Amino acid sequence: MINPLTSPLLTDLYQLTMMETYLQTGMDKTAVFEFYVRKLPGNRGFLIAAGLNSALAFLENLQFSPAEIDYLAQTGRFSGKLLDYLSSCRFCGDVYALPEGTVCFANEPLIRIVAPLPMAQLVETRLMNFLHFETTIASKAARCVLAAGGKRLVDFGLRRTHGAEAGTLAARATYISGFAGTATVIAEKLYGIPIFGTMAHSYIEAFGNEEEAFVAFGRANPNNVTLLIDTYDTLKGAKAAVNAAKRLSKEGIKTQAVRLDSGDFLALSREVRSILDESGVPDIRIIVSGNVDELMIRKLEADEAPIDAFGVGTKLDTSEDAPYMECAYKLMEYDGKPRLKKSSGKATLPGRKQVMRCYRDGKMVRDILTEEGDLQEGTPLIKKVMDQGKCVSPPPDLTGIAVYTKSQLESLPEHLRELAVAPSYPVEIAPSLLRLRETAELAIG
Amino acid sequence: MINPLTSPLLTDLYQLTMMETYLQTGMDKTAVFEFYVRKLPGNRGFLIAAGLNSALAFLENLQFSPAEIDYLAQTGRFSGKLLDYLSSCRFCGDVYALPEGTVCFANEPLIRIVAPLPMAQLVETRLMNFLHFETTIASKAARCVLAAGGKRLVDFGLRRTHGAEAGTLAARATYISGFAGTATVIAEKLYGIPIFGTMAHSYIEAFGNEEEAFVAFGRANPNNVTLLIDTYDTLKGAKAAVNAAKRLSKEGIKTQAVRLDSGDFLALSREVRSILDESGVPDIRIIVSGNVDELMIRKLEADEAPIDAFGVGTKLDTSEDAPYMECAYKLMEYDGKPRLKKSSGKATLPGRKQVMRCYRDGKMVRDILTEEGDLQEGTPLIKKVMDQGKCVSPPPDLTGIAVYTKSQLESLPEHLRELAVAPSYPVEIAPSLLRLRETAELAIG
Repeated sequence: MINPLTSPLLTDLYQLTMMETYLQTGMDKTAVFEFYVRKLPGNRGFLIAAGLNSALAFLENLQFSPAEIDYLAQTGRFSGKLLDYLSSCRFCGDVYALPEGTVCFANEPLIRIVAPLPMAQLVETRLMNFLHFETTIASKAARCVLAAGGKRLVDFGLRRTHGAEAGTLAARATYISGFAGTATVIAEKLYGIPIFGTMAHSYIEAFGNEEEAFVAFGRANPNNVTLLIDTYDTLKGAKAAVNAAKRLSKEGIKTQAVRLDSGDFLALSREVRSILDESGVPDIRIIVSGNVDELMIRKLEADEAPIDAFGVGTKLDTSEDAPYMECAYKLMEYDGKPRLKKSSGKATLPGRKQVMRCYRDGKMVRDILTEEGDLQEGTPLIKKVMDQGKCVSPPPDLTGIAVYTKSQLESLPEHLRELAVAPSYPVEIAPSLLRLRETAELAIG
Repeated sequence: MINPLTSPLLTDLYQLTMMETYLQTGMDKTAVFEFYVRKLPGNRGFLIAAGLNSALAFLENLQFSPAEIDYLAQTGRFSGKLLDYLSSCRFCGDVYALPEGTVCFANEPLIRIVAPLPMAQLVETRLMNFLHFETTIASKAARCVLAAGGKRLVDFGLRRTHGAEAGTLAARATYISGFAGTATVIAEKLYGIPIFGTMAHSYIEAFGNEEEAFVAFGRANPNNVTLLIDTYDTLKGAKAAVNAAKRLSKEGIKTQAVRLDSGDFLALSREVRSILDESGVPDIRIIVSGNVDELMIRKLEADEAPIDAFGVGTKLDTSEDAPYMECAYKLMEYDGKPRLKKSSGKATLPGRKQVMRCYRDGKMVRDILTEEGDLQEGTPLIKKVMDQGKCVSPPPDLTGIAVYTKSQLESLPEHLRELAVAPSYPVEIAPSLLRLRETAELAIG
């Protein structure tokens, strides 16, 4: 059985037809490809690089099984030469990348692949698939984290993610960016991410009586009591939660929170807070979910809504306002010579690049995009992560990445922390790169 | 190793905590849940139901492995009772659904699950995950098909889909809605969908010389020659393609098409068409890709651009303008009694529903949403698809579904075929359903 999550057949046909030609014509010299975002979506001032872990695991494990080779053979589309190449191929290139969790901008390479041309071409589709999606979600999640000003955020999006892998990768990407956890059970098993969740409206409906539903839940799940109070009428639900909490308290069971999933969250959270406080259960917290995104969080925070945590789902995990980014995996060098594309609106800067970041008083002030090895002011961000197909170090643990991301977000210029996209952050292009482009342009026949 | 594509741990934690309570309190009577879209996205006049095949395969194969049970046990979160239940659980319910490819609207159930409450609850997350995504993509794809007026469409989106499963399911969903095929190789293996693809810009850049790149490609892939002509300058690229086609022709190799991936497609397609025609290669077709969506297709078709086929990628496979839909899996009945939710903006209509569709002169004119068994005018759309956990018939083949979808699209009212969303299609609610809601409302304590 072929598993699309790991099969090298999860690729575009043109990778194979190009490889066919490369092998027939002996074009197997070293190629340099870089993946970068061409242009930030209009409402993004910065990105959080993510997906490198998935990308490296893909490269390390890349292998065609005999069944996959047989499949390709029986299509009659490919030469024996290509099939032989694929049967024995393992990724043997060098990889350079921005560490996961790094703040980055348009035109800055997230990854550079240095490998024989057929191999570097073969890996394009899945590398883009990972880096594009995980960066998209980590970037959206970082906006939620900045808006929430330290309040707890939990990923609730699995039901509306685009398939299973989107669900698991979204749980990971949001955790990197500072979420406390996810509702997705398998994310705990796969990544060790804390998981959260208690009850849905159907649960209340099945009982019909809110207070009895709440008490039964507390007894069955005494360490995890968050009560959903908006099934029929939120304020009546809050009173039912108070009654249930008092009954459960006598049995030694603590009610941690109530959850609101619909309505006017500002008004309702205030009224519910009053009910809880005036009823002698001020320790019960308020969680809000339902169509939440960073703009809603920011508004509720500005209005000082008495909300203690947010469940953020669909709009986050589909990156609803920017579900894709203009991005590209482009040939920058082949056989030692810089290469470029001039297509309208999609022209490339050739060469192997480094990003230098300049700081002032702990805040990032500008980046310089330059040729690797060109001495420029600042701290280099791109690091070697794979040597001849082997990772140069074990993957950093997820908590470590989250800590790094937090420090990256703290170093953002203030307007980007406030989610303003203007002025855009300055990314200068070093003269050496512009000269390289001129050279490459002259070389096109 | 746990595979997120098939593991029942791909669920929300609250399904398990609710099940815990249901089992502790003996709430295991028959529940009826329905999944439906609450409200169409603003720019959708109709949907194409999709995802049923995935949903039924999930239900038929649902099973916790010993490793998954061990995992849940060691978390210390769950009772022995729940773990025992999960170890032996197999889906044993009845399922009713709209066939894949059916045109449908807001509030019309895509699926109804009738099963013991804990079981019906357990399957919620993954059922929604499949039905929501596949319906989203099939619906977007149908718009492209209607705009293209019979011209060939190919799915090019894998690199920017949200993960691997989104890529494979998007290939399937777009094929259902009338696409000719996809660039995604594994979709041919998994579903038998035709695949397409030839070369990327990197291929041209590696050669540096377009004509030589084209000739080498044709020789290596003589049955699949589509030449990408916009790497440097589209009109020069077209002339290089003409030269290459003439050289290849002498070797008995036919050049099928050229592809444009950037620039002003209307102007460029006209100029390229002239170059091809005037150079004596009028059989070479023109394919366009790059930021294509249904609106661009419609505009180019209205302007009679000489384009023979479109590659549609990112905007389709992320459903860029509507990457999610408001949808819900709601309890409609428990233990023989109708159930409902009254949450602000999210109130439900209780009961088991049927959709009756009325036609005039072969066009659909209105639907009636009613209680199952209530006699109403029209053709019933919802059919029984699973009985006590077993599919009542083998899954229809994909080509059959595509043929059915085509006939569904032909029966759409004219304004919906033209992608106008107003007037909205009438979906009436039968009096019996409204009476049922009144009864259910009175029953809430």
